Amino acid sequence: MSRKILVAVDEGEESIHALSWCLKNVVSSGKITVIVLYVMPHRTVYAPMDGTGYLFSDEIVESIEKHGQEVAESVVKTAKSVYDEMKNVDVDLEIKIERGDARDVICDAVEKLGCYMLVIGSHGYGAFKRTFLGSVSDYCAHNANCPVLIVKKPKDQSL
Amino acid sequence: MSRKILVAVDEGEESIHALSWCLKNVVSSGKITVIVLYVMPHRTVYAPMDGTGYLFSDEIVESIEKHGQEVAESVVKTAKSVYDEMKNVDVDLEIKIERGDARDVICDAVEKLGCYMLVIGSHGYGAFKRTFLGSVSDYCAHNANCPVLIVKKPKDQSL
Repeated sequence: MSRKILVAVDEGEESIHALSWCLKNVVSSGKITVIVLYVMPHRTVYAPMDGTGYLFSDEIVESIEKHGQEVAESVVKTAKSVYDEMKNVDVDLEIKIERGDARDVICDAVEKLGCYMLVIGSHGYGAFKRTFLGSVSDYCAHNANCPVLIVKKPKDQSL
Repeated sequence: MSRKILVAVDEGEESIHALSWCLKNVVSSGKITVIVLYVMPHRTVYAPMDGTGYLFSDEIVESIEKHGQEVAESVVKTAKSVYDEMKNVDVDLEIKIERGDARDVICDAVEKLGCYMLVIGSHGYGAFKRTFLGSVSDYCAHNANCPVLIVKKPKDQSL
């Protein structure tokens, strides 16, 4: 059965560019490399989190840092297992872990690595950050220098 | 040369779903139908646009309506020519014109037509509507029941 893509157009040139880009890039086949990027916060981000005016002790910072490393390793492991499960996919996988504000690091990576598309989950990076900073996906959709595919987890699957 | 897709992941399940979806759907080949949807506003949308408290006369409404039809035909013609130029693309094209609020019509169409992806320009539908209602692409990115690919026109091309 044919898979259907909906392309919404209006009278602006941008939507016609979207159609053209879709026909050229989404539909065409060819060798693809998927680069999985996980962004860890800067160490210095932890310091002001206390909120009491006192800085965290070195011990606590180290503990948070260690937890962060473990989370990063766990995410990378999961990403690799998702890739390994799709044995019939003709695609290379690269894994990258970087540090910084996720929004800036992701948009910079798109440019530096010369990616033609960015794929990102609709939510993520925590409810706290989302409330105050806006979601990472919203930011990237507006600022990344390439088309951005926002993927929501279907409602019938648990989050 | 291999084309690169960047997949940004975090510790949430949604980003792993995004990676999985990308590997399954963006990378794989197979027959695809691209459905181009142009949404015209309801006739009744014109009435409150005057802003003076007076409604438009029937004549003016008819004139606006005629202009709307011409714009729709022009957009459809452009979309078809973009498709025709890509002679080597193995994809079927369907054109649809519907009426209503673009945000609702697009999200409904995704469901009704069973589309696996929505492609939309980043801007569009006019600066006025965007300011007061938020952009159509932002709304669809959050509310469409499928992954949404937001395509911006590159900065080095004129809008």
